[in-house]
Amino acid sequence: MNIEGKNQVVEAIKNDKTINKLFVDKNFATRRDDVISLAKQYKLKIEFVPKKTLDSMSKTSHHQGYIAETIDFVYSSLDDILNTQSTPFVVLLDGIEDPHNLGAIIRTCECAGVDGIIIPKNRACQVNETVVRTSAGAVSNMKIARVTNLKDAIDYLKEKGLWIYVAETGGEQLYKQNLTGPIGIVVGSEGKGVKQSIRSYCDGVVTLPLKGSVNSLNASVATAIVVYEIVRQRDFKN
Amino acid sequence: MNIEGKNQVVEAIKNDKTINKLFVDKNFATRRDDVISLAKQYKLKIEFVPKKTLDSMSKTSHHQGYIAETIDFVYSSLDDILNTQSTPFVVLLDGIEDPHNLGAIIRTCECAGVDGIIIPKNRACQVNETVVRTSAGAVSNMKIARVTNLKDAIDYLKEKGLWIYVAETGGEQLYKQNLTGPIGIVVGSEGKGVKQSIRSYCDGVVTLPLKGSVNSLNASVATAIVVYEIVRQRDFKN
Repeated sequence: MNIEGKNQVVEAIKNDKTINKLFVDKNFATRRDDVISLAKQYKLKIEFVPKKTLDSMSKTSHHQGYIAETIDFVYSSLDDILNTQSTPFVVLLDGIEDPHNLGAIIRTCECAGVDGIIIPKNRACQVNETVVRTSAGAVSNMKIARVTNLKDAIDYLKEKGLWIYVAETGGEQLYKQNLTGPIGIVVGSEGKGVKQSIRSYCDGVVTLPLKGSVNSLNASVATAIVVYEIVRQRDFKN
Repeated sequence: MNIEGKNQVVEAIKNDKTINKLFVDKNFATRRDDVISLAKQYKLKIEFVPKKTLDSMSKTSHHQGYIAETIDFVYSSLDDILNTQSTPFVVLLDGIEDPHNLGAIIRTCECAGVDGIIIPKNRACQVNETVVRTSAGAVSNMKIARVTNLKDAIDYLKEKGLWIYVAETGGEQLYKQNLTGPIGIVVGSEGKGVKQSIRSYCDGVVTLPLKGSVNSLNASVATAIVVYEIVRQRDFKN
């Protein structure tokens, strides 16, 4: 379904609609534009097209230069995610920007039986068609919540009894940490890792052994290793 | 460096030169052509260009319609890989075709301290620029051997005392298997998995727990989880 018009598009972005791509009049590309800024903040895909393309896409003929293409995915709430029969197991992503990485993480989490994934609304990749495709369909089977403030979400999870660990360098060896309780794992973005303000807020940092000289794992690979270590400790520990 | 001329290019392909891309006269695209068939068998990137483009690239002016662009990577031998101070730890790839997956696997293996990776010469992605880039530079720090016959390579590794396990569904739970000895892990291609002829040849099959309904991990993610379980068992088991 397409959403047309400036205010409607802004509302859709702010109200958790799953926007695959935003089409914008290419004459707006070079000007200061609130909608474009907002869309960039939400890391939406933006395509600048001639006005006549928008005219031919439009059903209302009131697109005002903006048409948002939405896809059929509904975000969950934190409570939806915590409403589980088992010990909660949540993954929080602090600013993953690459849709392939987000899709890969969703796919892995679905396989590992993670209860839900929490992503920030701003400055992070949202669920779009690339994410859906890369996830190999796992998106439709995974609860994903979007939050304005990751710190507030962590607070809420802590209140609910979860232990929140950051997966990053410089912490305790992953394999020496007991990860069998109700847990949230925070994974950072590819380049920047987890923000210091978030990191200092968590219960601990778990670190993978790195033996090479490159010393950096891809974000989705690191997430997979940590998530499966939790599966091992929960289900297979002798 | 570029290699020019039909015979020279064929020799380069057969003799382990690391070819990034093969440029071919676009008039050859529709005909039966031995060089093109060979290049496809080796999963090389082929670009069809006008003859005049080849003329302008050529230094010898004897390109005969074929110029291979090579990159500076030297494959290792099996013995190079086995020549390690520690207990051998080898990863064998049965037909990975996606250069992003190959690059990601190399990156992970480098971080995990794997001694070397073995890939087939035929019908599998070779080291090219995409692989180098995706590996985040790890390629230059990892021994990679190309073999004509993966089964023969497995035989040789077995002779040298390695235990060879296939990572795939339908085997023993990964976490219940002792993986601390000299080891080779065989990982299959994205779509087809490990060939039955290879599978039946190995010492066992190890399987990751899958709890979702999508039930398929990306090849590079599955490799990462298995490789890091070996690291855990070797270095961190209580």
